[in-house]
Amino acid sequence: MADKQLDDLFLDTLKDIYYAERQILKALPKMAKAASSPELRAGFEQHHTETEGQVERLERVFEILGKTPRGKTCDAILGILDEGKSIMEEFKDSPALDAGLAAAAQAVEHYEIARYGTLRAWAMQLGHKEAADLFGQTLAEEEATDKKLSQLATSVVNKKAA
Amino acid sequence: MADKQLDDLFLDTLKDIYYAERQILKALPKMAKAASSPELRAGFEQHHTETEGQVERLERVFEILGKTPRGKTCDAILGILDEGKSIMEEFKDSPALDAGLAAAAQAVEHYEIARYGTLRAWAMQLGHKEAADLFGQTLAEEEATDKKLSQLATSVVNKKAA
Repeated sequence: MADKQLDDLFLDTLKDIYYAERQILKALPKMAKAASSPELRAGFEQHHTETEGQVERLERVFEILGKTPRGKTCDAILGILDEGKSIMEEFKDSPALDAGLAAAAQAVEHYEIARYGTLRAWAMQLGHKEAADLFGQTLAEEEATDKKLSQLATSVVNKKAA
Repeated sequence: MADKQLDDLFLDTLKDIYYAERQILKALPKMAKAASSPELRAGFEQHHTETEGQVERLERVFEILGKTPRGKTCDAILGILDEGKSIMEEFKDSPALDAGLAAAAQAVEHYEIARYGTLRAWAMQLGHKEAADLFGQTLAEEEATDKKLSQLATSVVNKKAA
């Protein structure tokens, strides 16, 4: 154990978010299909395209490290996405469904914000400048998506739900 | 299903975060015990006290709604905390342990930031002004804790880990 270092933790966390992003890629079309508001649906579809680019950035980081891209089961994202699925089932046909979907998506975004913030800091500490830049780009996208979801929730979705 | 409304979603999410906070109350002393940096340990201990106050605020919101405080299993927080436990096991005795602990704590904080942001918006939409204020107070604490953890990670913990 004692010989495990920050670069091991960095690689573990990279595998964790790589797994998570690919789970998110599978979940987003289901969330888009479930959404009744056209704005929310469009938001999920746009974020799906963005997520494909984020996965490519992660693959570039694996390449920088000389590793084959490989995921590691991420219990956190599975739990977060399971809660989203429950909402889709329990609030199917409810006017509050979109509010629940937007909230579930924000929980996903915040998980990613935490992980990319950490990965960027560790990449800088370990001297992986290009990787740090790539994480910074994705982090900015996730933060922007979270803000967009907050605005959409307050201006459209929650009003419709109440 | 069709008669489920935003107030049902609000109560469900309140139960979710109530369960989550009580899981966090149990996890924080273990994280404090595992931390080798005195600053990180002190941070976890301080956040434990803060979390007790956050649980009391949630109980006040249940009271406002005329409901008995009750949790609902939150798969998301269980997944997030499980990842923290794995890090404590896999990086025991490693100089990178504290970096992993800080990262795990930030994933917890971001889950809470997502939930309290949502709950505050829904409380406002539903006209529960006092509840919205209480959520806002907790949200500010979680955001401050996340920032403190970022600073501690960059200034102390990651350097020691590398």
